[in-house]
Amino acid sequence: MTIKTEFLRSVEWVGRSIKLLDQTKLPLTVEYIYLLTIEDVWESIHSLKVRGAPAIGITAAFGLALWAKSYDGLNMEEFLKRLKKQRYYLSSSRPTAVNLFWALDRMVASVEGVKTVIEAKGTLLSEAFSIQKEDEEICKRIGEYGIELFKDGDTILTHCNAGGIATAKYGTALAPFYIGKEKGVSLSVYATETRPLLQGGRLTVWELQNAGVDVTLITDNMVAHTIQTKNVQAIIVGADRVAANGDTANKIGTLGLAILAKEYGIPFYVAAPLSTVDLDIRTGEDIPIEQRHASEVTHIYGQQIAPEGIKVFNPAFDVTPSKYITAIITESGVLTNKFEEELRRVKKFAN
Amino acid sequence: MTIKTEFLRSVEWVGRSIKLLDQTKLPLTVEYIYLLTIEDVWESIHSLKVRGAPAIGITAAFGLALWAKSYDGLNMEEFLKRLKKQRYYLSSSRPTAVNLFWALDRMVASVEGVKTVIEAKGTLLSEAFSIQKEDEEICKRIGEYGIELFKDGDTILTHCNAGGIATAKYGTALAPFYIGKEKGVSLSVYATETRPLLQGGRLTVWELQNAGVDVTLITDNMVAHTIQTKNVQAIIVGADRVAANGDTANKIGTLGLAILAKEYGIPFYVAAPLSTVDLDIRTGEDIPIEQRHASEVTHIYGQQIAPEGIKVFNPAFDVTPSKYITAIITESGVLTNKFEEELRRVKKFAN
Repeated sequence: MTIKTEFLRSVEWVGRSIKLLDQTKLPLTVEYIYLLTIEDVWESIHSLKVRGAPAIGITAAFGLALWAKSYDGLNMEEFLKRLKKQRYYLSSSRPTAVNLFWALDRMVASVEGVKTVIEAKGTLLSEAFSIQKEDEEICKRIGEYGIELFKDGDTILTHCNAGGIATAKYGTALAPFYIGKEKGVSLSVYATETRPLLQGGRLTVWELQNAGVDVTLITDNMVAHTIQTKNVQAIIVGADRVAANGDTANKIGTLGLAILAKEYGIPFYVAAPLSTVDLDIRTGEDIPIEQRHASEVTHIYGQQIAPEGIKVFNPAFDVTPSKYITAIITESGVLTNKFEEELRRVKKFAN
Repeated sequence: MTIKTEFLRSVEWVGRSIKLLDQTKLPLTVEYIYLLTIEDVWESIHSLKVRGAPAIGITAAFGLALWAKSYDGLNMEEFLKRLKKQRYYLSSSRPTAVNLFWALDRMVASVEGVKTVIEAKGTLLSEAFSIQKEDEEICKRIGEYGIELFKDGDTILTHCNAGGIATAKYGTALAPFYIGKEKGVSLSVYATETRPLLQGGRLTVWELQNAGVDVTLITDNMVAHTIQTKNVQAIIVGADRVAANGDTANKIGTLGLAILAKEYGIPFYVAAPLSTVDLDIRTGEDIPIEQRHASEVTHIYGQQIAPEGIKVFNPAFDVTPSKYITAIITESGVLTNKFEEELRRVKKFAN
């Protein structure tokens, strides 16, 4: 196998269609599909071909631009009416994805004052590009702030996939590795496979390997021994939701890693765009933890691995109390001490 | 499915043959095979149909008794010569299993002074029964000492499979659950699946479910969240090797559990027969850690789950420093403070 040192974008506007990396086929097959209609876009979001909140939002935004491009009427009122219908249609593709609604609403809002259909088509496409560009910019800044925390030759451990393919580019927790690569700062990465859904083993190691970053795969229970024997200097993870006090919900297993980091005296970093910070949630105790189906644990790729009828506990996330978090890396800088104060300050600035 | 509340023995002498639970087929198929010849015994050990050091030793011991039973000569000198040949033959079935050699040597030694072939046949069978009985007794005592550390209604977490099917009966880390069941002390168990080879998900939950013990399966990275939210009162694990100072080598993942137990202020117990204590090894640093093949991590049941050519770190064990161990539960009692002194005292007594 040839190691390619290029960064693969998961969503890209290519003129007449949207080029999409089919993430359901990774890592065994790297396949791009071309979305030609809004129905294609709906299906690709619904069937998880695209995953990761920012990547879903970007795909949906380009989806509306794609629909607009093929619209052949000239009446602006009629166009707006139909656009809103398409907005509701696309939002039904994954009804729990907050980022999807946010992107669609922003797209519709962008043409509210526009006079002609021709102009609106251009505005929609340029708004979709803006959403993508802004996300890329946020990830890049997280990466630039993040890389300042590491030095050439460091070994860093990460969990799940807070990666480039879930965003416009760079990812969040993985952004420092890509920015490091661009700046000539060479880092070694240990990636946990992240059971039950194996996002680490299927996606993280795949995208880092592709970008030429030195990465080694371990199972989730090898972390303590790896820290103890492989000179790991830090742990970095993404975030699904950050409470006002800094408590962070992220993929199941994150909490255990934070405790190991504390025990071994190494820093534990959370990479989180400010969009994941929810100041209305006071502490992690108020974050509901999604319980998922037992079959995710008892079966792997359809193969049953546990006995029939066994009881399973399958929480999708856990909450890491802020006391275990050394720093939260945002696009507005690295927050390190009084998280509540700092988060309120940067969120205010960002809004 | 019907939950059976019986204890299934993995090795049993049934008159003309050895009845063996085929552990390679668990948990999807519960299949017993009957070993009729010493070649059957060799094959079943070699192909891992029987696993767990004590269970392997017991199977080999019955294997020599089985061979002797079918021997039709009367010359004792010739019998002894042939017996030793069979001893070497069986020892080649799994050349790294220390317990296998120990059991075979003990069998041969048992007939060294015996005068007739008839008498020797009886002695060999009774010696094999003794080996099995003694192992059962050791496990039972570990279970009896262990159950004293828990109270009715407790929730306990365990890792890997230190279970009944790896021994004559009861197992080591699982023994308190079976003894509890016999004594009417009801415990709930969380069992980690134990990647990469899934001994927890395939074996532990299967045998506990079979015995009617309340057991719930989790993935390895759910432990911190489970302790935090499910009122886990203790963690108990087995041991592959205990050094003189109490440092314990056990299945990969054990070290991380011990650190979580410390952080949450719950006891961390190691259940270890004295045969696993090696006073010649001063500390855990002198215990070599076996590195295993990458495919155990990249493939599950033959299904590839990680990208082609990815680097893998796959240590089979880790070493838990004794400072994290609340107590070592042996057949001679529960050791809780100065492990080195205590281990030397009970080993001396046991020898």
